[in-house]
Amino acid sequence: MQNLPTYDDVQAAAARLQGHAHQTPVLTSRTANEQLGAELFFKCENLQRMGAFKFRGAFNALSKFTPEQRRAGVVAFSSGNHAQAIALSARMLGIPATIVMPNDAPAAKVAATRGYGGEVVLYDRYTEDREQIGRDLAARHGLTLIPPYDHPDVIAGQGTAAKELFEAVGPLDAFFVCLGGGGLLSGSALATRALAPNCKLYGVEPEAGNDGQQSFRSGHIVHIDTPKTIADGAQTQHLGNITFPIIRRDVDDILTASDAELVDAMRFMAERMKLVVEPTGCLGFAAARRMAAQFKGQRIGVLISGGNVDIARYCALLAG
Amino acid sequence: MQNLPTYDDVQAAAARLQGHAHQTPVLTSRTANEQLGAELFFKCENLQRMGAFKFRGAFNALSKFTPEQRRAGVVAFSSGNHAQAIALSARMLGIPATIVMPNDAPAAKVAATRGYGGEVVLYDRYTEDREQIGRDLAARHGLTLIPPYDHPDVIAGQGTAAKELFEAVGPLDAFFVCLGGGGLLSGSALATRALAPNCKLYGVEPEAGNDGQQSFRSGHIVHIDTPKTIADGAQTQHLGNITFPIIRRDVDDILTASDAELVDAMRFMAERMKLVVEPTGCLGFAAARRMAAQFKGQRIGVLISGGNVDIARYCALLAG
Repeated sequence: MQNLPTYDDVQAAAARLQGHAHQTPVLTSRTANEQLGAELFFKCENLQRMGAFKFRGAFNALSKFTPEQRRAGVVAFSSGNHAQAIALSARMLGIPATIVMPNDAPAAKVAATRGYGGEVVLYDRYTEDREQIGRDLAARHGLTLIPPYDHPDVIAGQGTAAKELFEAVGPLDAFFVCLGGGGLLSGSALATRALAPNCKLYGVEPEAGNDGQQSFRSGHIVHIDTPKTIADGAQTQHLGNITFPIIRRDVDDILTASDAELVDAMRFMAERMKLVVEPTGCLGFAAARRMAAQFKGQRIGVLISGGNVDIARYCALLAG
Repeated sequence: MQNLPTYDDVQAAAARLQGHAHQTPVLTSRTANEQLGAELFFKCENLQRMGAFKFRGAFNALSKFTPEQRRAGVVAFSSGNHAQAIALSARMLGIPATIVMPNDAPAAKVAATRGYGGEVVLYDRYTEDREQIGRDLAARHGLTLIPPYDHPDVIAGQGTAAKELFEAVGPLDAFFVCLGGGGLLSGSALATRALAPNCKLYGVEPEAGNDGQQSFRSGHIVHIDTPKTIADGAQTQHLGNITFPIIRRDVDDILTASDAELVDAMRFMAERMKLVVEPTGCLGFAAARRMAAQFKGQRIGVLISGGNVDIARYCALLAG
């Protein structure tokens, strides 16, 4: 197994991101504090470039390319935030980007990826394997494949959000972070153990897809079918070979939130905090609300991962 | 005529607000910059306490109460953000607050005002005069009436948002501020003339209610009927005796935005900036978009005044 990234890598990533990523605000809400009986600090990565923390990991990974890698270009497969993060980072760094997306991806997402300068290769998700297509493109054209989460530079980049949070508000008693494939959670774990060693750290995944919880408790990576949940950023089927051992070592527990809890949290974010947050971005807050009784009077961090949600879908969820 | 407030009063207000008001973030958007061909800085008062800049003026005014005034209490008439700002500020300062609201005000707003600890007095807006009710309550119980905009301490408090913006990003070439009764615009004018004397300063009001534009151009305060517009925070019928002379002296022009432009701006704010902004809060950005050709390559400030909009109404506007 390759060496796991460390907090040194998070610090190096922060230096690379300086002046390129937004240092996103940490927002507070008196109403949230009163409802939970605690003091909450929301790290708002929905206000990050391209609307999600994913920019951090993508930009960090691409910044480390050799001149040869830069010339040849990057390839990524994703229908979501990682695709846009790679396309935007590549454009900023002058690197050609190829993004493999399903041919039934929302037109807006394909357009946004093209808008960031990425070349989009469409595939049929029922008959073709995107990983194979990505690997074939990489081999044929000498492209470097950057996976969405299981990569040390991606993990180190994602950890910079938690680093900024602790540097802004000091140590916390508990910290709730959304969990899909584990890039954000494992990066956050590196920063948490370095900056707030006694902080309870929780990963939060959709109730319908608790492979992370099963893996954490069983000690081996559990694979599941693509879960049915509104949290489309956390529909991963398994943790990674790099993210899992960090999570197992540094995280206190894996929790879940139901789709109904996510919608309630989205509504709170809109009504009280004036923030558009995608369903996946509400996982941390939903779990913090459920766990609040254990943290009376304490200081709680919540990572809001992103805000990329089609507005018609957003309004339909809030009305439902 | 009483003396007009000055930038010294804005500075004194900033000291009073320190640690009580949020220092709201200044956000940027690559997409907005590309669309307008300029560099935009959004001062996000929708992320202020109770969701609007109004908290600044209310808290500043109440902070200056004498011990006698504090004991007797404050009265305000408003169905909107000013009511909640007075109720919240009064609670924070331990001052009894009475808010005069129409009996057909949305239940959520009445509940929010009561939630902030305000005593709500309802009146019939078709048969009763809220200003008279407010004055009667003030006289009978020795309460101090704080009007929503035409008050030097309110104006000075509102000016602290622009002060923070200039201190965060330096001088600007143009600055777009929403205009209702003129409290925010006149306060912003004091800060702008002190900190960025060459900056073009524009007030922006709803096209359907351009009393400010008429007043600015004619040189006297023009009264109009309550305008029909989705910008409910700018449905004022006239500028104030204090706000008008400051605006006439320090503002470069008054512009307007249509309801359709406000909806477009709201959609941009939600989709690209992940912010819930009320229609009135989009006046500045809507005008900046219309004027962009005049400011190519320049630095533009936009004040987002608030985000207090019923989510069902918000979604209906975005869907329309």
